[in-house]
Amino acid sequence: MKGSLDNLRVVLVATRNPLNIGAAARAMSNFGARELRLVNPYDAAFREARSAVGAAELMADAKSYGTLPEAVADCRLVVGTTSAGRRELQLELRRLEEGGRLIRKRLRAGAVALLFGSEKVGLSNQDMSHCHWLLRIPTRAERGSMNLGQAVAVCLYELARTGKVGSAKNGATRAEAGELERLTRLLFEVLGTSGYVKPRAAATTEEKLRRMVRRMNLSAADAEVWQGMLRQIEWKLGIRGKKQDQE
Amino acid sequence: MKGSLDNLRVVLVATRNPLNIGAAARAMSNFGARELRLVNPYDAAFREARSAVGAAELMADAKSYGTLPEAVADCRLVVGTTSAGRRELQLELRRLEEGGRLIRKRLRAGAVALLFGSEKVGLSNQDMSHCHWLLRIPTRAERGSMNLGQAVAVCLYELARTGKVGSAKNGATRAEAGELERLTRLLFEVLGTSGYVKPRAAATTEEKLRRMVRRMNLSAADAEVWQGMLRQIEWKLGIRGKKQDQE
Repeated sequence: MKGSLDNLRVVLVATRNPLNIGAAARAMSNFGARELRLVNPYDAAFREARSAVGAAELMADAKSYGTLPEAVADCRLVVGTTSAGRRELQLELRRLEEGGRLIRKRLRAGAVALLFGSEKVGLSNQDMSHCHWLLRIPTRAERGSMNLGQAVAVCLYELARTGKVGSAKNGATRAEAGELERLTRLLFEVLGTSGYVKPRAAATTEEKLRRMVRRMNLSAADAEVWQGMLRQIEWKLGIRGKKQDQE
Repeated sequence: MKGSLDNLRVVLVATRNPLNIGAAARAMSNFGARELRLVNPYDAAFREARSAVGAAELMADAKSYGTLPEAVADCRLVVGTTSAGRRELQLELRRLEEGGRLIRKRLRAGAVALLFGSEKVGLSNQDMSHCHWLLRIPTRAERGSMNLGQAVAVCLYELARTGKVGSAKNGATRAEAGELERLTRLLFEVLGTSGYVKPRAAATTEEKLRRMVRRMNLSAADAEVWQGMLRQIEWKLGIRGKKQDQE
């Protein structure tokens, strides 16, 4: 049977406690999400997570990845979760209710990744630079940090709760995360050749560019056009560079 | 500070695992509920529940009761929770969303008890006979049974979330149209120099770029960054072009 959360990918990044992986799997099973992805789980024995009551199948199908970009490469929307309000970030922060509505809409068109960080530190800035925006669970400011399994349950409840909201928008297909990452690298290269990137700040600049590219919310078609434009610029810079070198 | 869940009493009936009591306490702390009541917990050492991260105070204040009627004696509304639909009962069953709205309303007037049964069997018929009605968490029919801590978190999230939809988003200021137009021209120039723009299709290409730049929905800050990047690329292309011309 086709469910409304079939296109959702729950991605747990650097989870320390296998019990929490099991708890996430159980909540997924309760609310009809199917695909669990793990990025660098601490404990290789995570599949034996005891609390995955009634979610054995889902746990057996869970895939493990070495890096976050690999885990979200086929997703057209990547959303990070946070319970404290990390407002210093340049990412748009949406409350669960509002963000949930958006995710539901996007789930009709393609894969959406929902990221949960490790129990100790949540998602890193590096992780967040792969996100289009952040979802904030509205906990109290002074007691923000949620248990991982509970955070997953609350988010999935919100996504599953009303089946139908709004209408199927005739929006364009969004670009996949893998494509956005290629675009980011290409832009970084072109800017490197142009002297825009200061060597000392290269890492920061790359992260900023990554976030900016995600904020552009590109369609698959536009992402392709951008890659074409940047490749042409890169080629021209290269040609001229070579001629210069030959002088 | 007075919170909206001050009048809520979370009542755990015959809970077996102290960790689940701790998890419930943590969720309460996250969403601003204060008063935890326990009816016949299996393990007398429940106060040491390790997972009550950030909820030590709440755990210390938790009260233990010998019977359910004692635990809910001062409450004006008593609601039982269930994740499977126990329709054989003569009690009214409300979905969490609808029931949550009702509970929020009643919390303004007096104490409301929200009951959670044991991990194995949930609330007994005897327990339910003390309830005004039942709250059903909308899990899938075939995988209904939720983890206790997760069930508490989901219910409290629903009760705590504000009725207001479409909150004041902390969105960035959008770029002005004039700025977007400058950006479009700059991009067009750079692409012209790079040989991306075919002379015959120049007008069409410019129009396409204009639309694409608008679709990016840029903030004022991002539009400025883009202009900086393009100016640098333009400068580099120009320098190299000039040197080439001088050959």
